[in-house]
Amino acid sequence: MSTVGNSTNIFWQESPVGKLERQKLLHQKSCVVWITGLSGSGKSTLACSLSRELFTRGNLSYVLDGDNLRHGLNQDLGFKAEDRTENIRRVGEVAKLFADAGLICIASLISPYRKDRDSCRAMLPNANFIEAKPFSFVFMNMPLTLCEERDPKGLYKLARAGKIKGLIDCLRTFVDRKIASLFPFSPPTNNNMHTYMGNGLSFKDSNKGFVLCIIGFTGIDDPYEPPLNCE
Amino acid sequence: MSTVGNSTNIFWQESPVGKLERQKLLHQKSCVVWITGLSGSGKSTLACSLSRELFTRGNLSYVLDGDNLRHGLNQDLGFKAEDRTENIRRVGEVAKLFADAGLICIASLISPYRKDRDSCRAMLPNANFIEAKPFSFVFMNMPLTLCEERDPKGLYKLARAGKIKGLIDCLRTFVDRKIASLFPFSPPTNNNMHTYMGNGLSFKDSNKGFVLCIIGFTGIDDPYEPPLNCE
Repeated sequence: MSTVGNSTNIFWQESPVGKLERQKLLHQKSCVVWITGLSGSGKSTLACSLSRELFTRGNLSYVLDGDNLRHGLNQDLGFKAEDRTENIRRVGEVAKLFADAGLICIASLISPYRKDRDSCRAMLPNANFIEAKPFSFVFMNMPLTLCEERDPKGLYKLARAGKIKGLIDCLRTFVDRKIASLFPFSPPTNNNMHTYMGNGLSFKDSNKGFVLCIIGFTGIDDPYEPPLNCE
Repeated sequence: MSTVGNSTNIFWQESPVGKLERQKLLHQKSCVVWITGLSGSGKSTLACSLSRELFTRGNLSYVLDGDNLRHGLNQDLGFKAEDRTENIRRVGEVAKLFADAGLICIASLISPYRKDRDSCRAMLPNANFIEAKPFSFVFMNMPLTLCEERDPKGLYKLARAGKIKGLIDCLRTFVDRKIASLFPFSPPTNNNMHTYMGNGLSFKDSNKGFVLCIIGFTGIDDPYEPPLNCE
């Protein structure tokens, strides 16, 4: 019997089929790829391209899109600071379930605050014998001007007109950090993280390159090798 | 742009790979099997056996166990009435995501109130051309005396000693309904529902039969036939 969070008298039920068995069934290693960045930075485009590319390679992935989840699981949450944190926490928990189920889970949400992202990363083991990189961040480090220029949802227009407070807060976080010359993510020595910069290529061409980089970085398509003690 | 629940300015992102494509990749039809019943009625045992049996048939399933989720996604929830409702709502939303991802999702939680279960069922389409039964309830209709006799978690002992209020409420729901000769679930004409009664067999033998019944009832292992317009 245990007490966890607000629950008492709850018990852990061991899974009848283990994560390794599910990975073996799917012939793939499961992981979470977490795409973070400003609105308009291309997170959804990248998530969709990555999922499609993985599908053509025979891999099963699933996209957890921040906006889509606000239509369902997170529909009770707004954009206050504590709601944002809870929003990200829940996406992290669900991503963990999908990785446990054997899938390549692609989470795509602004998630500007490192502490929230780090909490999610802490939910999954850092590394084990079969998964070198079970949780990878991808930072869509696009220039703010480019994001505003694209503005696919018209959010920047509304934000500049003072009609969306949350987004302005979010922009400030990024902009202030830039002004302070602080790199807002973990340093490159952290090999669970990957960053991208706009590089002069067209958005479409960059995106294609990003997909291949992520697949290479995460090793998603490395041949699946079940550990000896799993046979 | 839309307003949903407590969120504004959110947009629906179409999935790059559709549910039908994922089902095709997995060679299976996805669905949700929702196991409901008293503590000790055998929900977890059935969920585990079903998941294991499906695995041996090459099917990918995932068990959403009520207690396990209270260690993670639902750790902020207690056992007050509104917390129970929110607990079940979230499990329903996650089950929906897993079914959308192409998996056979097995949810196992007491979920005593029909209105909560019905809300979950309403999240998934009732039927479409590929899935006759995308959401099936399995009611572990075990006699209360048998559940108390088993009492695998020692919860009944605590409840009878007045140490768990929530469980007593839950028992009352079931017992009162029995006293009133009310069948606490939808009538048998509803083909999205399946009920089981203790039938004199041993728990182990019953369980084996239940697994086969569920597989037959849901048609999980019927040959996968992609619809013509999916090719």
